Amino acid sequence: MPEAEPKTPLAQRSADVRRYALSAPDDVAAFAADLAAGRLDAHAIVAVIGKTHGNGLVNDYTRGHLTLALLTALSDATGLPRRTFQERIPFIFSGGVEGVLSPHFCVFTVTDVTVKAPGAPAAGARGLAVGVAHSTPMAIADIGRERQIAATADAVTEAMVSAGLKPADVAFVQVKGPAPSGAALAQAADGAEPPASTDPNRLMALGRAACAFGVARALGEAPTHRLVASALLRDRDIFSRVASVSAGVEVGLNEVVALGMAEGWAPGLTIASAPSADALDVRGLLACCAALGLAAWPEARPERLRAAFVKAEPSRDGSIRGRAHMMLDDGDISAQRHIRAAVGAVAAAALGDTAVFVSGGAEHQGPEGGGLVAVIAEND
Amino acid sequence: MPEAEPKTPLAQRSADVRRYALSAPDDVAAFAADLAAGRLDAHAIVAVIGKTHGNGLVNDYTRGHLTLALLTALSDATGLPRRTFQERIPFIFSGGVEGVLSPHFCVFTVTDVTVKAPGAPAAGARGLAVGVAHSTPMAIADIGRERQIAATADAVTEAMVSAGLKPADVAFVQVKGPAPSGAALAQAADGAEPPASTDPNRLMALGRAACAFGVARALGEAPTHRLVASALLRDRDIFSRVASVSAGVEVGLNEVVALGMAEGWAPGLTIASAPSADALDVRGLLACCAALGLAAWPEARPERLRAAFVKAEPSRDGSIRGRAHMMLDDGDISAQRHIRAAVGAVAAAALGDTAVFVSGGAEHQGPEGGGLVAVIAEND
Amino acid sequence: MPEAEPKTPLAQRSADVRRYALSAPDDVAAFAADLAAGRLDAHAIVAVIGKTHGNGLVNDYTRGHLTLALLTALSDATGLPRRTFQERIPFIFSGGVEGVLSPHFCVFTVTDVTVKAPGAPAAGARGLAVGVAHSTPMAIADIGRERQIAATADAVTEAMVSAGLKPADVAFVQVKGPAPSGAALAQAADGAEPPASTDPNRLMALGRAACAFGVARALGEAPTHRLVASALLRDRDIFSRVASVSAGVEVGLNEVVALGMAEGWAPGLTIASAPSADALDVRGLLACCAALGLAAWPEARPERLRAAFVKAEPSRDGSIRGRAHMMLDDGDISAQRHIRAAVGAVAAAALGDTAVFVSGGAEHQGPEGGGLVAVIAEND
Amino acid sequence: MPEAEPKTPLAQRSADVRRYALSAPDDVAAFAADLAAGRLDAHAIVAVIGKTHGNGLVNDYTRGHLTLALLTALSDATGLPRRTFQERIPFIFSGGVEGVLSPHFCVFTVTDVTVKAPGAPAAGARGLAVGVAHSTPMAIADIGRERQIAATADAVTEAMVSAGLKPADVAFVQVKGPAPSGAALAQAADGAEPPASTDPNRLMALGRAACAFGVARALGEAPTHRLVASALLRDRDIFSRVASVSAGVEVGLNEVVALGMAEGWAPGLTIASAPSADALDVRGLLACCAALGLAAWPEARPERLRAAFVKAEPSRDGSIRGRAHMMLDDGDISAQRHIRAAVGAVAAAALGDTAVFVSGGAEHQGPEGGGLVAVIAEND
Repeated sequence: MPEAEPKTPLAQRSADVRRYALSAPDDVAAFAADLAAGRLDAHAIVAVIGKTHGNGLVNDYTRGHLTLALLTALSDATGLPRRTFQERIPFIFSGGVEGVLSPHFCVFTVTDVTVKAPGAPAAGARGLAVGVAHSTPMAIADIGRERQIAATADAVTEAMVSAGLKPADVAFVQVKGPAPSGAALAQAADGAEPPASTDPNRLMALGRAACAFGVARALGEAPTHRLVASALLRDRDIFSRVASVSAGVEVGLNEVVALGMAEGWAPGLTIASAPSADALDVRGLLACCAALGLAAWPEARPERLRAAFVKAEPSRDGSIRGRAHMMLDDGDISAQRHIRAAVGAVAAAALGDTAVFVSGGAEHQGPEGGGLVAVIAEND
Repeated sequence: MPEAEPKTPLAQRSADVRRYALSAPDDVAAFAADLAAGRLDAHAIVAVIGKTHGNGLVNDYTRGHLTLALLTALSDATGLPRRTFQERIPFIFSGGVEGVLSPHFCVFTVTDVTVKAPGAPAAGARGLAVGVAHSTPMAIADIGRERQIAATADAVTEAMVSAGLKPADVAFVQVKGPAPSGAALAQAADGAEPPASTDPNRLMALGRAACAFGVARALGEAPTHRLVASALLRDRDIFSRVASVSAGVEVGLNEVVALGMAEGWAPGLTIASAPSADALDVRGLLACCAALGLAAWPEARPERLRAAFVKAEPSRDGSIRGRAHMMLDDGDISAQRHIRAAVGAVAAAALGDTAVFVSGGAEHQGPEGGGLVAVIAEND
Repeated sequence: MPEAEPKTPLAQRSADVRRYALSAPDDVAAFAADLAAGRLDAHAIVAVIGKTHGNGLVNDYTRGHLTLALLTALSDATGLPRRTFQERIPFIFSGGVEGVLSPHFCVFTVTDVTVKAPGAPAAGARGLAVGVAHSTPMAIADIGRERQIAATADAVTEAMVSAGLKPADVAFVQVKGPAPSGAALAQAADGAEPPASTDPNRLMALGRAACAFGVARALGEAPTHRLVASALLRDRDIFSRVASVSAGVEVGLNEVVALGMAEGWAPGLTIASAPSADALDVRGLLACCAALGLAAWPEARPERLRAAFVKAEPSRDGSIRGRAHMMLDDGDISAQRHIRAAVGAVAAAALGDTAVFVSGGAEHQGPEGGGLVAVIAEND
Repeated sequence: MPEAEPKTPLAQRSADVRRYALSAPDDVAAFAADLAAGRLDAHAIVAVIGKTHGNGLVNDYTRGHLTLALLTALSDATGLPRRTFQERIPFIFSGGVEGVLSPHFCVFTVTDVTVKAPGAPAAGARGLAVGVAHSTPMAIADIGRERQIAATADAVTEAMVSAGLKPADVAFVQVKGPAPSGAALAQAADGAEPPASTDPNRLMALGRAACAFGVARALGEAPTHRLVASALLRDRDIFSRVASVSAGVEVGLNEVVALGMAEGWAPGLTIASAPSADALDVRGLLACCAALGLAAWPEARPERLRAAFVKAEPSRDGSIRGRAHMMLDDGDISAQRHIRAAVGAVAAAALGDTAVFVSGGAEHQGPEGGGLVAVIAEND
């Protein structure tokens, strides 16, 4: 189709994803080596998403540990202060590599490229698009309330606009929101406005739920009048099909990374996503693999796989396909750790790769008792 | 083939498997109701195998709890003392329903049936065969030593003979061996012969390994000169393809249940088994499903499934398909709990059923870092 | 004082306490031996209180395990059905022997005695008095609500009346209330009246709080208008000085054991109790020891000690004497397990005995962040 | 005593200890502020010892996290690279603030002071002396072997010499040795010399034991012929009365901090230490308090307390004062976490202060089943 070929050199953005294995929460040696060798440009980094070694609960410090190690490496490599990068780049880490899961982090970069004909993409061609935004700071009293829903929605919209993504083209929105420690929470309880919950784990859940509502509001996934604070953790039939939310003590606002396919972005990587109906449901994941041309279970070939993201949740009625599970009753192992181990293994078996970002706490992120998956792969 | 039809009524044994859900370790209500209603004959029960709510480690008392509850129900139903059943029936329970797994127990019964032509099976027809045996009592100093290997081998042979099973026809051998508590172990350390290990968890592992060697010896799965105590937990390339071993404080000898397909047993149920190469390997499980005509992942239909057994083990080199796992380093969650959650979810997703008996501690039971699976289903 | 001597034989009740070590949750061998030898009369048993091996949380089945084992032993010894004893005797077990704590159970018996002069006690002499009562059955929707407060208060009053105890003479009231499993709770959530909380652990806390309010109401420890459901887990300055409440899946009503000193009971054993201000506060415990003539820390001599009970709670503001504790933030170990380990060790060190009943979940049982202690000893 | 007054100005060293609370493993704000304000001289810091938030086991990354945060703060404050401080200063952190324990770190500084008459101390006066040394690097195959014993002994001797401490004057020697991760260990297992154990936790224990033997050898606490590798974890009657050893993945050699009272050091702070016979034994701790003039339990006044160190260990025979404990059997909570919670609470109650460095893993550090305590306080 010669008429589609651009007459003049085309300015585009190009998104890339590098996945680093993580032998410990401060293992940034390969990352630092790439910076030192010029294989990675510190200024091109727009987001880092990863799974760290901790328990993924309130007292998981490995998320902050990796953040500090990465900031130190970036500062060492550039001579710039750590806060330069800290303020600009979302570092979104979810703790918990239960079962077969492997600790890792994915570095997202965006660079400007100029493509000349005839190698330039056809008109209408799309590539992986990445948009990033930070919300306004959140007080503890904001968490799990309308203010967090609104602030997240605004940040998601900002991220989409910056990437040229339309709502229908968004495949995955990762959000990291704040979660106070028990001590901070106890102090806040004496404030003018009490926290939405005085239980740290419940407040964490409310915060994740509010961020999911924020995504759904920005994307128009549900009627605005239903995406309200009073429906959080109650109206379980409301959910975003693309929101993935983590929370941790290490952030004080909502960080947003929106991923999708858009024009104006160089081809090379493609993202696909789908919801999952329950913890055993792999149809969505297999559909993503099919869309990306990846061979899946039982003879998976993950060579072109660049990143995979899974959200999951123990079903709240205590059963899966008619049989009881015990995750909600366990006083020794958090239900979030159980479900990550289980759903992470299913995804890893399907993909043939254990470096999957699996995050529990899927409140309003995919169907109740299920969740969602997203996969990024190199084009075939 | 009229020449194959039996001329006279055929005396056969018939094995059946009933799977009961378990809402708590003492939930024997449905079992007791079946006994009371005559749907289940206490005297026909030859073995009970199940997964209970505990952690599956040394301080898991739910195995003994279910045993006591079942014995009490049997005594209540028959008026016979509990020890009548305790001495005869192996109660083999593995604790740990991590992730999606569902607590349950399978009751194996054997009854004599007389089949008249023309409904009788053709000559050479085979059915699910069940053989049971108990070893001699094991002292703590016997665990993980030649005496346990030999005693297990003898018991497996006895079980096979009783069921008319040839080595090649054995699909699955479940063994339950003893594991002393830390206190009992500390006392034994002062004895004439010290225990093979003074670490309770290591001794548990040695004991499972010895039982696996016993199965392999009885079945001729490896040269006898390699199946020796000095090779336990060392020569990891030696393994049984059908042995599944649990250990617990609640038994003082090795209980053996051998399952396979043999003549002289009424058709109706079929068992298939296969080893698995690593924690993500589902080829063996899918092969079992294919052999049994069960639709598997992603549109599994478990209606005819009667029981599924899985052994699994975290790979000892700390990696799966080239990526690190963290199971061996975790001080909060035992590696056995991690692997059960992971491999159990993969099996449950493949089968569409979460009531799978998944047991960690697969030393010499299937390939290193992998394990084995066995599935029993109604004939199609 | 010859004028105080009774002229005629005196009919009295005599309370005794036997403490049994527990090597496993079904270790009732010594108990059964005492029944068989006539050293213990099954019909004289009025209550059993103990600490078992489990985690003390929702999925702790060791409480029910010991109950089943004791009922079986009682049935075996008497030929009576288990339910005869189950309906009459409160079996109140708290799981969790963290740190130095030792599993054990205390069997309380009451027998009628006739004392002749001159050995009879002086007029006004008092002995350990034991009163027992069961509340009406509690539905899940009753837990943590006014109905549980009222039912507990009625049961406490009944227990006091039966023992001839006046409110000022009550030293310790142990209550065991119901706590539904997550599955039962999920089912109940669809009922006409939703549970007071859909979080199993929070509902457990609300239930303990309601029982504590019931004790306080029966004893007049706080104004009735403050002992209302809306104050549960909120008005933390309201507390009983003698209530100790456990909750578990194994009971469906509130069981009450009231202990104190009263006339009409044979001397021999004495009970003392006191509140504690925080987790480090031992003044109350030392005062109990002084009252009972027990040598305490650092040269404790527990020979005459018969039983010790401690309730404790992590301070909710996250600090003890101005320094932070981390108990509330821990996703790996429940805060209740932390505090039992800590306060249990302090009590064991003070008493020189590790078989102490230490129970977390001290909501409204002693001062916020503290708790209470009670000690029973033989008279010097 | 005018004859004791020095005729000329006296050159002395002065040791100080600052204790910082730690709200999270990277909470170095107060430390950084002290550096910035000149209240703390980065170049005077000779050692940092502290308790961090993690589990204190192999996968505890909070030790390295705090180290990185402190190094970053020191680099930020001085403009010097992090490795300047990393190579010179032992950062010895023990994870695990179970029960009432409070995370904190103690910064030891040594400065040169010149004291003029008449304020100068009398001849023979002693002050807190601090000596620091690093051993040669340890390969994984060195851990738990003679090479680690010898290297530690040499480092302890070097530390004593540098501080002018004689063996009899040493009150406490803190050592931090290496502990490989499971993955590193698995790799090392293929090397020319296999590790002393392939079980990460056992190797950690062997390493702690070897360091304790090294201290005992340097101080002459036991005959040299008994302080050999074959006696590690076997000859439990051999122990150091002053050694406290931690191990972690974050170091590759043995770091030594020796504390005692010596001439040539300015008075102001005093250290006392004592062994403890079992987990309930507080006589040693009370003797330390008496020696330092600190009011202890039950009306403790910790105002002058500067630091407290406790080593403890679950008794290996499973009992304390004749009663069973369950610490060794627990598959959910490590025995080390149990004992830290218990003994830490006893020490905190005795001292009235929860910022106590309590470390498990007391192999050959104090009597079997017991341990040791050391207390530093300002002079009265």
